[in-house]
This record gives sequence, structure tokens and C-alpha cells, in this order.
Amino acid sequence: MTTPLRTPPADPSAATAALAHLAAHPDDAVARLTQLLQIPSVSTDASFKSDVDRAAAWVAGFCEQLGLSVETLTPGGGHPLVIATTPDKIVAPGAARRVLFYGHYDVQPPDPLDGWTTGPFEPDVRDGKLYARGASDDKGQVMMFLEALKAYRDTDTPLPCHVTVMIEGEEECGSVSLPAFLESDADKLKTGTADDTVCVVSDTCMWDADTPAITYALRGLVYFDVKLHGPSRDLHSGVYGGSLANPATQLARVLGKLHDDEGRITIPGFYDDVAPITDAVRDEFAALDFDETAFTADVGATPFGEKGFDTLERRWVRPACDINGLYGGYMGQGAKTVIPTFAGAKVSFRIPADMDPGKVAQQFTDWIQSQNVGGCRWTLENHGEAWPVAVANDSPWLAAAARALEATAGKKPALVRDGATIPVIADFKDRLGIDTLLIGFGLNGDNIHSPDEHFALDRFHLGCRTHAALLAEVGAMG
Amino acid sequence: MTTPLRTPPADPSAATAALAHLAAHPDDAVARLTQLLQIPSVSTDASFKSDVDRAAAWVAGFCEQLGLSVETLTPGGGHPLVIATTPDKIVAPGAARRVLFYGHYDVQPPDPLDGWTTGPFEPDVRDGKLYARGASDDKGQVMMFLEALKAYRDTDTPLPCHVTVMIEGEEECGSVSLPAFLESDADKLKTGTADDTVCVVSDTCMWDADTPAITYALRGLVYFDVKLHGPSRDLHSGVYGGSLANPATQLARVLGKLHDDEGRITIPGFYDDVAPITDAVRDEFAALDFDETAFTADVGATPFGEKGFDTLERRWVRPACDINGLYGGYMGQGAKTVIPTFAGAKVSFRIPADMDPGKVAQQFTDWIQSQNVGGCRWTLENHGEAWPVAVANDSPWLAAAARALEATAGKKPALVRDGATIPVIADFKDRLGIDTLLIGFGLNGDNIHSPDEHFALDRFHLGCRTHAALLAEVGAMG
Repeated sequence: MTTPLRTPPADPSAATAALAHLAAHPDDAVARLTQLLQIPSVSTDASFKSDVDRAAAWVAGFCEQLGLSVETLTPGGGHPLVIATTPDKIVAPGAARRVLFYGHYDVQPPDPLDGWTTGPFEPDVRDGKLYARGASDDKGQVMMFLEALKAYRDTDTPLPCHVTVMIEGEEECGSVSLPAFLESDADKLKTGTADDTVCVVSDTCMWDADTPAITYALRGLVYFDVKLHGPSRDLHSGVYGGSLANPATQLARVLGKLHDDEGRITIPGFYDDVAPITDAVRDEFAALDFDETAFTADVGATPFGEKGFDTLERRWVRPACDINGLYGGYMGQGAKTVIPTFAGAKVSFRIPADMDPGKVAQQFTDWIQSQNVGGCRWTLENHGEAWPVAVANDSPWLAAAARALEATAGKKPALVRDGATIPVIADFKDRLGIDTLLIGFGLNGDNIHSPDEHFALDRFHLGCRTHAALLAEVGAMG
Repeated sequence: MTTPLRTPPADPSAATAALAHLAAHPDDAVARLTQLLQIPSVSTDASFKSDVDRAAAWVAGFCEQLGLSVETLTPGGGHPLVIATTPDKIVAPGAARRVLFYGHYDVQPPDPLDGWTTGPFEPDVRDGKLYARGASDDKGQVMMFLEALKAYRDTDTPLPCHVTVMIEGEEECGSVSLPAFLESDADKLKTGTADDTVCVVSDTCMWDADTPAITYALRGLVYFDVKLHGPSRDLHSGVYGGSLANPATQLARVLGKLHDDEGRITIPGFYDDVAPITDAVRDEFAALDFDETAFTADVGATPFGEKGFDTLERRWVRPACDINGLYGGYMGQGAKTVIPTFAGAKVSFRIPADMDPGKVAQQFTDWIQSQNVGGCRWTLENHGEAWPVAVANDSPWLAAAARALEATAGKKPALVRDGATIPVIADFKDRLGIDTLLIGFGLNGDNIHSPDEHFALDRFHLGCRTHAALLAEVGAMG
């Protein structure tokens, strides 16, 4: 457990001037976020490489303006990683704790483009919401923390604790370079032990528009691109139809077997490591009073999934398998009578605590290779594996975050899980030994990963204030 | 049966001058075909509409140069239909028979574009083969007949029989407007009875590069675009994964059930009307000495399909169901963790004699609507239905065609079936009462419907000569 380290401790009131400054200059912060949102830093598509680099440079430049010592690295030759640390001169004398803030400046592809009301990289404010790819995931949430630092600087207030900022450009492609970086260059982060350093991440959601949340568990992810290759060229489906294996037909046949009629994943051994749901967890979920019908109705759907579980269980503590994309053969208007030379799919798994992504990847690979596809040939491309995460929900760090949230939002935060994945959190625990506070200000309705992504400005400003308050609360832990 | 009608009959030697002319001017014919191939008349994609119109105008203009009376119609408001008939002054006095030549100037989409060595609409001759979309299917084969007419004209030889040319622009989208045209305007074709008129079509294959063929049966076609609609927008697959129906996952699950593990189509009642294979048909197929291993190996595949049948049976007298395209969700590079708002597939059926396309369409629709897809919603778009065709393989018309082929190719033609579909043939029989001679000069290796489509020039010239000879043989029937 955390023990007092040194004196003098900072005081929660250290944030007073910064909070007043943030309240007085909301539009300037939005203008800076808008600049960053204009850069189409799509990390999964090589054609956006120069934009990804430009976004990294923008973040590094802003950190320099904040008085931080900045380094931009390219571990593994991937997209730039911005590391910035506070020099002692801008930190309150005697401050003992350190916050490692982690976020990402890269964004999901904007497709489908025709779903956007205004351009994905032309930020537009409508009804108090800022619309752009990355507004909520995660540029808007990253900028909340940097704006908190700026408020301390602009009011000449020493920071109540040491700070390391780590903003990466590969989160949306599985944070592939971070493990190697943490292996070889973790000292650049200047983190200490679990007692004196905590990681803070803002890439999750509030419980609802009025209720802040701290997230203490995430699912892991395994993502594949699977292609099935058949004839050496596209064939006329009249001449050849029925006489050889059609890769599109066979792909559907195999992927169609991934779930049984009760919504269970059929891969042998898949559920071996899934923890049963305890009564305590059931009680905890029940206390949240979650409305599963409203949750699915809000996106035009109805609850549907693994038999025997409710929606929160399916999202938070049960694995899921989704086809994220299908492609192959003729995809245009009208008809083309072709047997395609190949067909493909994006297939991903979300895995709750205790499941091993490497094992899942191997099970899926073995299963798919064992299918009879009439002489067609698979190529599987692994687009990333991430471990699930579960952190203590009763730590002093979490208590500090709860105090900060209650002070700025005027309401106690809910303690929740999330079905999504932030690949690096498990690495912070494994390799640096430190826990993470997931304090996010998104909402499920923000359309992250889909057209018209947006972030309500009142939540953006709440996030800026909360981070300013949190720095003081962490400082006050002594 | 056909009976002599009038005297004087023409004589097979009526073709002599035309044949000599064709042999003397091969390059001019190729140059004209090249002009037509340069027009990207893709009928299934509305963005090519003006090119489709341009191709129709080119064909109409060429028919006028041949001295024909030309009319261009747009039955049903679709793509232009060119009808051209011989005025009596260019036909031998007393000629009694009529050939209705049917073909199409529209082509399949050229996708995937990166599979082409040279542009699909930039005709290029390599190794004696003309490469372009439509070279074999069907512009090259249409031009063979028109070049035969031109050879008669250029040598001032009266045509040995009456001729109607009917070249449409909707074959690749199911000849949707032709039935209505045949219902209301069939008199424009000037056809008579089954005794004095025959339809001739060149849109099929030779048995091999040395052996000509006459095709006497075709499969029919039913083609659907099926879309499954789920959530009202693309969703984050971490937040929602497992809690609602993913249209891509459900589409694969349903389409994956179309075939059982023995390759049979699982739709209830689907095989009710499929005729059993008689010993006579088995003997006929066996006599062709077909090498199924070479046939599939030639396109990098192995024989695979409905258990209990061989490759010729699967292609010619058994139904087939193929997925011709899959699309939906993220189809780009790398990963995007999305539950798509919809996913779709192109699904088609090839049906042998005795199956009713309308019944198959209804069975498929009923079957797909009966599937549990967790609240997702189907939209089905019917892209065309065509009846299977079987014509007598012992008629005097067929005997005349066999004589023409033997004279020009130096070898008796094989009598074969084809697994592909020419929608209008069944309509010619039903509505006009006339039979069709399918005399094609393609080969399965011509890459029709796929990149690098081509047509060997020696087969093009053989086709020109054969049509010239056939006109004389038909005239000689008296």
C-alpha cells in the first residue's frame, strides 16, 4: 500500500488558480484542440504516414510550450512516440509523486466517408459538440491533460507532482512498438514504484452524461486479417460454378461456424481460461442499474449474444468474436458473375481477464487451418494482440481520482469496467510495475470509430478541470 | 421438322468469294474490332452509361455501313438495343430462310483493375491474342458475324438468306428489357416460324483450341444482392462486441449454411425439380473424354463440389450456388475495430434444365428471411433471373451448322452443354417459337469476366469464316 514519502505535501487547493484559469479561457483550449484534429493521423493506413508524423510534431511542440523536456522517438521504426517530462524547476519543491499520463494522437480511419455531416478532419462545432475524427478518441482526451498542465504554467503555479507525458501514434494499430520501448528505454519515463507513480489514461467513458466514472477493467484484443485464396484468377461463375471451391463461399462457410446457435464461440478450448462470474461481480453489476434495452435501442439494435448472460456481462466479462470487415469478389453496383480469386475478412476477439491473447491467436489459427476448404489456401495476418486489464478498485490512487472527480463533476464517480481495449495498460503493470487510473470523459454516443465522431465541449472542459484537480490530489497524497 | 420452302435454293459455294475476301483482309477486321473494344460499355454500372450508348451507336453505324436497315430502341428505358435487318435488295432472290443473329455489345466490369497487363479498354495484341474487356465476351464474337456480312457486301455477293441482327446492351445485367421487347415489338425482328428462321449466337466456347463445338444446353441464373442491416451506425467493437447482432458476423453465419458438408445446397425443396442424370447423358459425357483434373489445374484449383458427381455433371446438369462478392465494414489496410452498420453479398444460383428461376428466387428469399439474425434486417435486390435452355441436338439447322464448322475448321464439331447462361435464348423459344444455334469460338482460358480477357485472332478469323459459310449453308437448305 501507498505510504507517505516526503514532506512538505502539496495541498488540493494548489489547483485553485489553474481551475480559475481554465474556467476563464475555454475557447482558447478548443482552438488548440481544433488544430490537432485537422491533422488526419490515421495510423493503420500507410498513405497517411506524413500526417501521422505531423501530428506527433504538433504534440511535441505543444509539450515544449508547456515547459516540458521533450523527446520524440521511433521505437521499432514505427510511428513517433512523444515523451515529455517535467524539469524540477516547474514542480513544487518536495513533490514526491509522479503521474505518467498516457494517450494517443493517432486515429481510426474515417471510413465510411459518406456518413459524415462535415469532413472528418474539418472540425465543426454543432450544439455544443465538436465533430471530427479523434475528437473523443483520443485527441480531445489527451488535450484535456495538456490543457491542465498549461493552466498551471499560465498561472505560474508549480506543479504539485512530477509529470511524464507519453503520447503514442500506434494505439489504433495495437501499440505494436511499445513493448519493445518499455523493455529497452523505460528509464526515459522516469517512473518509480507502484507507491510513488501512477499512470493516468483518459480514453474511456463516463457512466452517463452526468455521472463520471473510473474504469478498473478492460478486455484484451486479438485481431486478424484472414484471406482465403482459391483459383489463380477470377473465373466465370457459369462456366466453373459448382466444380471447384469458391473462396468467398468457403470463407463464409468457415466464418459462419465461429458461433453456434446459442452465440457461443466454437473454437475448441476457447473458454478454458474464462473466469466464472462470481456473485460479488453479479451484485456489483446489478447495483449499476444498467438499462440494456436502452443501451442497444440507442443504436437501433436489441440485446443479442451468448445465451445465459446479460448485456453488461457480455460486454465486460465474456469474450466476443466479431467480423469487422468482409471483402472480395465483385463489390460494385449491380451484378458480376464471378468466382473470385480470393476473399477476406477482418476477424477480432475481445477477451476478458484471465484470457491469454497469444493462446487465443494460436487457437484461432489452428482452428481455421483445420477447416476443409476444398484446396483453397489461407493467409492470416495478425494485426495485434493485447492483454485484458484489471486493476485494484480500492487503492489510494483511485481514492484521489474519486475526490478530484467529485470536486469537479459534483457527483461521486461510478466504478465500472469497459469492453474495449487499451493495449499498453497491461504492459505498464507488467514491465513498469505501476497501476493505471482510467478516467475518461467519452460517452458511448460519441461515435468513436464511426462517422460523425464528436466530443461535447462541456465534457472536454470538465476533463481539463479534473486533471488539474487530480494533479493537486496526487500531490496532496504526500 | 424443316421442309424445303421455295426454289431456287442457294448453294454452299455462295460463300466462296466472301471467304476469300476474309482471308485476304484479316487486319482490317481486327482494326474494326479494336475500335469497338476501346469503348468501356459496362452495363451494370450507371457511371458508364454514356459509354454504353456510344458502343450502341458504333454498332448501329457499322450495321448501316453493311447496307442493313437499322433501328436503335430503348425498350423499358434501358440500354439501347440495335435491330438491323437485310433489305431484300441485298439478299439472293428467292432466299427463304432467315438467320436472327443475337449478341451483346455490353461488357462485364473490368475489376480488379490491377490484374490487367494492359488497360482493359486499350486493346493490345500479344502472341496472336487480342487483350481487352469484351474481346471474347462478346464484342469479338459479335464482330465475327458482322464481318461475315461485310465480306458478302464487299464482294458484291447477295446474301444467301435473310438476316436480322439484334445486338443488345444488357446481357451482363440479365437482359432485363428483352422480354418486354419480345412481347410488344417482336415483329421488328421479321422472324418466321421454327421452320424458316433460326437464331444464331456466338457467345460460347470451342471444345478445345482445335475442336469447334455446338452447344445445345445452358444453365439458367438467379442473382441476388443481399444486404443485412444492423445497428444504426458503425459501432466500436470493444464497447458493443458480444452484446448485439453484428451484421457481418450474421451474414457469414447465414451464408455459411447455404451448403452442407457434402456440397449440397440446403434450401428446402431446392432440388425438387432437378432431373436425375440418365445413363444416356452419362454415356454422352463419358464420350467427350473430359479431363477434370486438367480443367481445374489450369486455374490453380482441384475438383470440388457436390458429392457423388463429377466435374462435367457439376458444371452442366447440377445446380450451383456461388457467393460472387462480399463487402461491408472495414475493407482497407490494417485494422479497424468496428461493428459495421451493414454487410452484403452477391449470391447467385446456376440452374440446369427443368428448374424454374422464379421458384428458386422465392425459395432463397423465404429461406434467408427465415433465419434468426438477432434483430438485423435483410434487403434483397434481385439482379436477374434466366431460364435454363436445352435445344434439339439433331435438327437440320444443327446439321447445317456442323457442315459449316467442319468446312472452315477442318474438324467435326463436338456437341456440348455449357454451365453458363444466355438469358434471352429461352425467350426466343418461348415467345418467337424459334430454336437457337450456339456456335462460339471462345475458350475457358480467355479470362472472360476476369482481368486480361483475350481472344486469339486465329479463332476470331475462324469465326468470321464460319459465319460466312453458315449463311450459305442455311441458304442451301432451300
